[in-house]
Amino acid sequence: MDAFESRTRRCQDRLPEVGADAAILFPSTNLFYASGFREEPMERHLFLVVPSEGDPVFVAPEMYDEQIRDASWVSDLRLWADGEDPMALVADLADELDLREGHLLADDTMWALFTQDLRETLPEASFGLASEVFDDLRLRKDDAELDALRRAGALADEVSVEIRSLGADAIGLTEADLADEIDRLLAERGGEGVSFETVVGSGPNGAKPHHRRSDREIEPGDPVVLDFGAYVNGYPGDQTRTVVFAGDPPEEYQAVHETVQSAQQAAVEAVEPGVPAEEIDRAAREVIEAAGYGDRFVHRTGHGVGLDVHEAPYIVAGNEVELESGMVFSVEPGVYLPGKFGVRIEDLVIVTEDGCERLNDSPRTWEALGE
Amino acid sequence: MDAFESRTRRCQDRLPEVGADAAILFPSTNLFYASGFREEPMERHLFLVVPSEGDPVFVAPEMYDEQIRDASWVSDLRLWADGEDPMALVADLADELDLREGHLLADDTMWALFTQDLRETLPEASFGLASEVFDDLRLRKDDAELDALRRAGALADEVSVEIRSLGADAIGLTEADLADEIDRLLAERGGEGVSFETVVGSGPNGAKPHHRRSDREIEPGDPVVLDFGAYVNGYPGDQTRTVVFAGDPPEEYQAVHETVQSAQQAAVEAVEPGVPAEEIDRAAREVIEAAGYGDRFVHRTGHGVGLDVHEAPYIVAGNEVELESGMVFSVEPGVYLPGKFGVRIEDLVIVTEDGCERLNDSPRTWEALGE
Repeated sequence: MDAFESRTRRCQDRLPEVGADAAILFPSTNLFYASGFREEPMERHLFLVVPSEGDPVFVAPEMYDEQIRDASWVSDLRLWADGEDPMALVADLADELDLREGHLLADDTMWALFTQDLRETLPEASFGLASEVFDDLRLRKDDAELDALRRAGALADEVSVEIRSLGADAIGLTEADLADEIDRLLAERGGEGVSFETVVGSGPNGAKPHHRRSDREIEPGDPVVLDFGAYVNGYPGDQTRTVVFAGDPPEEYQAVHETVQSAQQAAVEAVEPGVPAEEIDRAAREVIEAAGYGDRFVHRTGHGVGLDVHEAPYIVAGNEVELESGMVFSVEPGVYLPGKFGVRIEDLVIVTEDGCERLNDSPRTWEALGE
Repeated sequence: MDAFESRTRRCQDRLPEVGADAAILFPSTNLFYASGFREEPMERHLFLVVPSEGDPVFVAPEMYDEQIRDASWVSDLRLWADGEDPMALVADLADELDLREGHLLADDTMWALFTQDLRETLPEASFGLASEVFDDLRLRKDDAELDALRRAGALADEVSVEIRSLGADAIGLTEADLADEIDRLLAERGGEGVSFETVVGSGPNGAKPHHRRSDREIEPGDPVVLDFGAYVNGYPGDQTRTVVFAGDPPEEYQAVHETVQSAQQAAVEAVEPGVPAEEIDRAAREVIEAAGYGDRFVHRTGHGVGLDVHEAPYIVAGNEVELESGMVFSVEPGVYLPGKFGVRIEDLVIVTEDGCERLNDSPRTWEALGE
């Protein structure tokens, strides 16, 4: 059986367990995970209806006919042409599959535009979220997935080392220049596109946790947050190091870096099966609080990584999900001093039978790397 | 008044007209249009609540504090930290603004994850879509927007001419190679990132209207669909030409190309204020039907272009919206012969007082261009 089909069958088995009659997917990683067909979200109606029994059905724009047949094992396609009403096809399908009064799980990233249409077309139905069945399946990666994630980790490491060896040559480059160079190296070394817009946050820009890049020139002594990764076989890398390319770092920097590095180490050491996700967050937070920077660690410690760069399990206070072998997530504590600098250190880890495997091993120190 | 603020005020004026008490935006082009703050959709709760009266309010992750203040005129931020419950802030805000039983317009691209949360937190509220107020505002572009769109059009033209001058040098390149070269030129000439994944569809791949690129090598005589563009000042270019770089095209190709070119010309000539959008579609379709390819023109004739590459007005049968000066959309008929080749020709146009202005003027012929 096709790998995508067997995932769909497992999803179908789970639907009754959560009291659902069908999942309705739209272009997303869930859709790819189940069908093998990959597309970006768009304003045209494209659904995969996965009932608890029988075969799934695509409702799709006519122009996707050939592409879906090429990419997916799903063979039942109901096609609509521009100018026709796609919701009429959905209504017919709901009758056929007896879903009009059913409990339907909408894809978590489905646009309001489409959930609104589904609610209007099927006013007697009730709605939940597809994550109720998909998260559990996608949480534990299979060997092929782990292999791709390992390769994406190694690629990020390789580029990190190469960039850090720029040393003083990085001074005077803009953040955007350096980000372009990272992107170029990721592509050259086999990346299939960046996992997210590469982050280069120098000096005070590093204190904005979700800063991307700017035209600010890197100066001697600037701490620079480098957060990037690229896809390999459909799975993303995601790694962060904070580096001073040349010159003397600002006061307080070394103490902050050491704190974040210890916090990251403590969190990684806390990872093993059976531990609740929030404990990993706590392990990092305790170190940072003890050093007096608790209020400057303004985000969770990590996020799951798989087909989506951000997915379950979230490593955050309140998440009591117990870690299991095969889960993959980031461990990325940070400390941000507004107007001064930020420090973040991030590796991805796989939960193993008795601890974890790090997917990133490039030096977690803050100095540039020698040739 | 800040340009973003004045757009928000116009949006607020319109809310009562559609019977709504507030719009609730999430990271989207609507959010940028109203606030000046730009972010990608993500799994963290980030909303801009725009009530019909008073000032709008952000509910956002704490770590976005500085970024939002830097980017936006909106000064009322309610921040939540990872581990806290963002919906509690939304509930408080709903009390404060008296929205619990209101009619709320959710951003059209808001994820089901968040609309579900809003429905659960505000069970007495009813929901519509933000497009009910935003589409009308965004439909007519102001001068700054038109200027950016003209520049994005000129950039696409420039790169199109340069690529077509490759002539026989393009033979043997893979589609992916050629797409990379297009992307490189777009960036080098000032593009701020591609409008969408650049499409290079050679030979039979051109017959899949939404094919992107593959490792197929371009052969002599292959018709190649080239569909691309890049952003300039936040606004995208989008242009398509179908080219034979060298060699003799397949039988039927010249007739198909001539048909599509005539259809595109007829559609562009039909553009003027007061004409329903569907008439532009009909003008193109009539030419293609008369040539006997009606059933191979499997998509609408065009889509509006603004902050989103695809937005209103859609140029499609059934859309009776009357064109107005300042609207911008694509005119892109195509004919697709499965297993053989496809032909699509696309320009963007601005509706003017008495007709339209094309934003793309590179040759619409199918031959390579000389030096």
